[in-house]
Amino acid sequence: MAKDYVHQLFAYMMKAGLTDDADHLHVVAISLFVTLLCACIVLGHLLEENRWMNESITALILGLCSGFIVLVTSKGASSQVLQFNEELFFIYLLPPIIFNAGFQVKKKQFFRNFVAIMLFGVVGVFISFVIISAGCRYVFPKLGLGGLQISDYLAIGTIFSATDSVCVLQVLNQDSTPLLYSLVFGEGVVNDATSVVLFRAVQKFNFDDFTGLEALLIMGNFIYLFLTSTLLGVMTGLLSAYIIKTLYFGRHSTDREIAIMALMAYLSYILAELFQLSGILTVFFCGIVMSHYTWHNVTDRSRVTTKHAFASMSFIAETFIFLYVGMDALDMDKWKTTTTSGPESLGVFATLLVLVLVGRAAFVFPLSALSNYIHKSPTTNISIRQQVIIWWAGLMRGAVSIALAFNQFTVSGDTKNPDHATAITSTIGVVLFSTVVFGMMTKPLIEWLIPHRAHDGSDTSEPTSPKDSDLHTPLLQDRDPGYEGVHFTVPRRSSFSMLLRAPTSTIHNLWRKFDNSYMRPVFGGRGVTHAEPNDGIII
Amino acid sequence: MAKDYVHQLFAYMMKAGLTDDADHLHVVAISLFVTLLCACIVLGHLLEENRWMNESITALILGLCSGFIVLVTSKGASSQVLQFNEELFFIYLLPPIIFNAGFQVKKKQFFRNFVAIMLFGVVGVFISFVIISAGCRYVFPKLGLGGLQISDYLAIGTIFSATDSVCVLQVLNQDSTPLLYSLVFGEGVVNDATSVVLFRAVQKFNFDDFTGLEALLIMGNFIYLFLTSTLLGVMTGLLSAYIIKTLYFGRHSTDREIAIMALMAYLSYILAELFQLSGILTVFFCGIVMSHYTWHNVTDRSRVTTKHAFASMSFIAETFIFLYVGMDALDMDKWKTTTTSGPESLGVFATLLVLVLVGRAAFVFPLSALSNYIHKSPTTNISIRQQVIIWWAGLMRGAVSIALAFNQFTVSGDTKNPDHATAITSTIGVVLFSTVVFGMMTKPLIEWLIPHRAHDGSDTSEPTSPKDSDLHTPLLQDRDPGYEGVHFTVPRRSSFSMLLRAPTSTIHNLWRKFDNSYMRPVFGGRGVTHAEPNDGIII
Repeated sequence: MAKDYVHQLFAYMMKAGLTDDADHLHVVAISLFVTLLCACIVLGHLLEENRWMNESITALILGLCSGFIVLVTSKGASSQVLQFNEELFFIYLLPPIIFNAGFQVKKKQFFRNFVAIMLFGVVGVFISFVIISAGCRYVFPKLGLGGLQISDYLAIGTIFSATDSVCVLQVLNQDSTPLLYSLVFGEGVVNDATSVVLFRAVQKFNFDDFTGLEALLIMGNFIYLFLTSTLLGVMTGLLSAYIIKTLYFGRHSTDREIAIMALMAYLSYILAELFQLSGILTVFFCGIVMSHYTWHNVTDRSRVTTKHAFASMSFIAETFIFLYVGMDALDMDKWKTTTTSGPESLGVFATLLVLVLVGRAAFVFPLSALSNYIHKSPTTNISIRQQVIIWWAGLMRGAVSIALAFNQFTVSGDTKNPDHATAITSTIGVVLFSTVVFGMMTKPLIEWLIPHRAHDGSDTSEPTSPKDSDLHTPLLQDRDPGYEGVHFTVPRRSSFSMLLRAPTSTIHNLWRKFDNSYMRPVFGGRGVTHAEPNDGIII
Repeated sequence: MAKDYVHQLFAYMMKAGLTDDADHLHVVAISLFVTLLCACIVLGHLLEENRWMNESITALILGLCSGFIVLVTSKGASSQVLQFNEELFFIYLLPPIIFNAGFQVKKKQFFRNFVAIMLFGVVGVFISFVIISAGCRYVFPKLGLGGLQISDYLAIGTIFSATDSVCVLQVLNQDSTPLLYSLVFGEGVVNDATSVVLFRAVQKFNFDDFTGLEALLIMGNFIYLFLTSTLLGVMTGLLSAYIIKTLYFGRHSTDREIAIMALMAYLSYILAELFQLSGILTVFFCGIVMSHYTWHNVTDRSRVTTKHAFASMSFIAETFIFLYVGMDALDMDKWKTTTTSGPESLGVFATLLVLVLVGRAAFVFPLSALSNYIHKSPTTNISIRQQVIIWWAGLMRGAVSIALAFNQFTVSGDTKNPDHATAITSTIGVVLFSTVVFGMMTKPLIEWLIPHRAHDGSDTSEPTSPKDSDLHTPLLQDRDPGYEGVHFTVPRRSSFSMLLRAPTSTIHNLWRKFDNSYMRPVFGGRGVTHAEPNDGIII
């Protein structure tokens, strides 16, 4: 219906042609999306200095407005131009975002906070999952939603435990708040992976009742997936480093180097999906390995190009996702199918929102305390103010939640079950509300809680991209400037007692030795690349 | 059938999962293609020095082999993993290739040879189209193909007039044979556009008989499409230059600059398709305008990144197309539908091949003579040897031919008509034969006809990408080094008599004045960018 209308809307602009209609509708949809993407970028640039807005919110609002216009012009039939498509999301849009995250992450910060990140990203999701599932199971029947199964409640638990790692990146700054950034962002990636894996496990076992055995099965499956996915990502990354180092593509063509890096990164993701592992974890670790080894083996041109091209692709994919979610939100088919009344819908929505808030608080504060107890080092200590920011910054729910909800409650995008429709519309509501309202309040909250940060850059919204000040500095700064320069003043003791006292830095020390002695000679990396004439020149 | 088999083939490698099968088949296909793409790049690198091979041929052969393996493992059912999809080709794969061609082309050479390029690309296609259509109309009924309409013959004429501009780029070198490169390559782009426009015109009018009026209608339609498409491309390019110059995205984010350049380039293509113009022409001219204005308005990082990222995307798209054509060639459904016997099939194939050879010879030699007569300047004179190379280098038929053939003779990839199936299989045959056999002979032919060129680089296969020697030169060389330095020693005469004697250089002179006085102040371009601290540094 709506599609026909959109078609007619544009028909007067076209000359009669012979391309078939289905193709042409696709062209109309793409034109609209590309135009909106350009508009988002321009608006995002103009709103750069604004303390409330960021690119995600801009895209979401622009998507909502466009959806509304299509809805009005199609006389209320539908706002959909492109059906929300899990495949598009999981196969094409998510991989560049997560890969770029791994590629640009400050590895040292990430691994220094590894324990805390794992606590938040894995244990935290389990806690939040249990609270949300149990809460919904208790409240929903009282609001008139009787048609949901145990597996549906478990699915809802995972759907609302998946934070939006994309939106978070736009409000925190890698340079000015490194600890917070690496914690929240690292958690975001691990959290996405955990949620998807947990979601698959929940769908797979399909219990009538939830007992200790099922919990164990899920845990076992999770650990298996976590390890194999990480291994696959590391192996693919190392393979790319080895191939590029051995064959030295740059000798003939810069394009081949760039192409093979991009293709192998994508290959790691798609292979993980093929073997039903977690592509998110795989491509994240592939990105880390590629930035540590492969990136140093290519020509200078390829380094500049990959750094910025991957960031730009990720940026386009992010903006596209929010636009897409915004436009999809006003899809009338789903809103009509739900038979839940207004107050009840509001009840479901409010319940979910409260459970998200409580579920996150229930793990951030205890686990932060645990992490502080384990680490006892001032550099990794998480203060109460920081804990509040971590709690708040992870409240946004995004496209992963929507994609999982569509997977659980629709059959190829459609549903006839009113309770399932309610679940979908509530998910969309929570995503919109949390992204716009919680998202807008994040920047001011950070400025309020950590006031001195406001001056040195926490209000510029793109941590992974070069800033104004970079224009005065060499083009290619290494991302880990402290790598060689840091000296660990660990007193002489046995390795084991060292491991007990300062586990992270000892592991890091051991890793550096291993890296220098065995890994770098084979896979390249900083300082062991081919001697190039302009290696010495600041590029 | 084959798809089921491929699925089963991978099934033992997977754990039982809950993703639905359709999605998973897609994942299998993508994994296969990405793996093959990586293999093509590695093989292409290793065969770089080989005088017979190039990346296109490698990809085609690899595709054929993979298709054969799938065919054997599926016990002869089919070689298709992905159905050849016009939409995928025209909407996603072709635009980056043509845009990059416009973005990296040596503008001065291109415009200096503009008249010759237009003669070959427009008039030549019409001549070739008439010869091939008439020849097929005369010969095919004698070979037992009685079921084709007049419109089918006209379509065949356009299908086999579309040269493969992609393959050509890999055997000619922009630096060592600039005249040949700009002629053959420029013709290739214009030729693609002309063929597609002509094909649409032929499909649109759907004559019972072909008279002078129809010819006029097609011509009129063609001129309209040519002008509007070019204008759209130029306007989009200028808009991008204006936006980037005015807003100066680089101030906040390099990623936004790169993203908006890529998106606006794609927007020009998709808008052209939306308005049923020629996206190929539009995006080509958009590329030219972007390289002349927009590219100079962005930060240094963005320049390096766009230059190499666009080239890499184009490279991946090219390789993918040949892989795809190779894999699709062994699709058994079409080969089974054709009822034409072996000798007759061979007759059709041979007829088409001869007509392609004759049709191209019929315009290259006369039009070269005409161009030499018009120009009379030694720099643009086309020698007999060069004419032979132009004739030969344009004999390859590629993915455009296949896409058009599928559009004419199938309904969403399938056909029940045996004559139509024969047309499809013959097209595939001609494409494979011309690409592999003619393609392999091109490099040796060039070396034989222009021997001294063999030393200075015509055997390196990637003209648009930086070479070994570039590693010693500044990272960012401007592509038109002669722009400011060339002085036209035109004697003082009236503009009109100048125009008659040396039309191209006079036009170029006038253009330069206009560009400097009116265009550059508004749209930027070399030398009028924002003053940046490291503008003076060699980067």
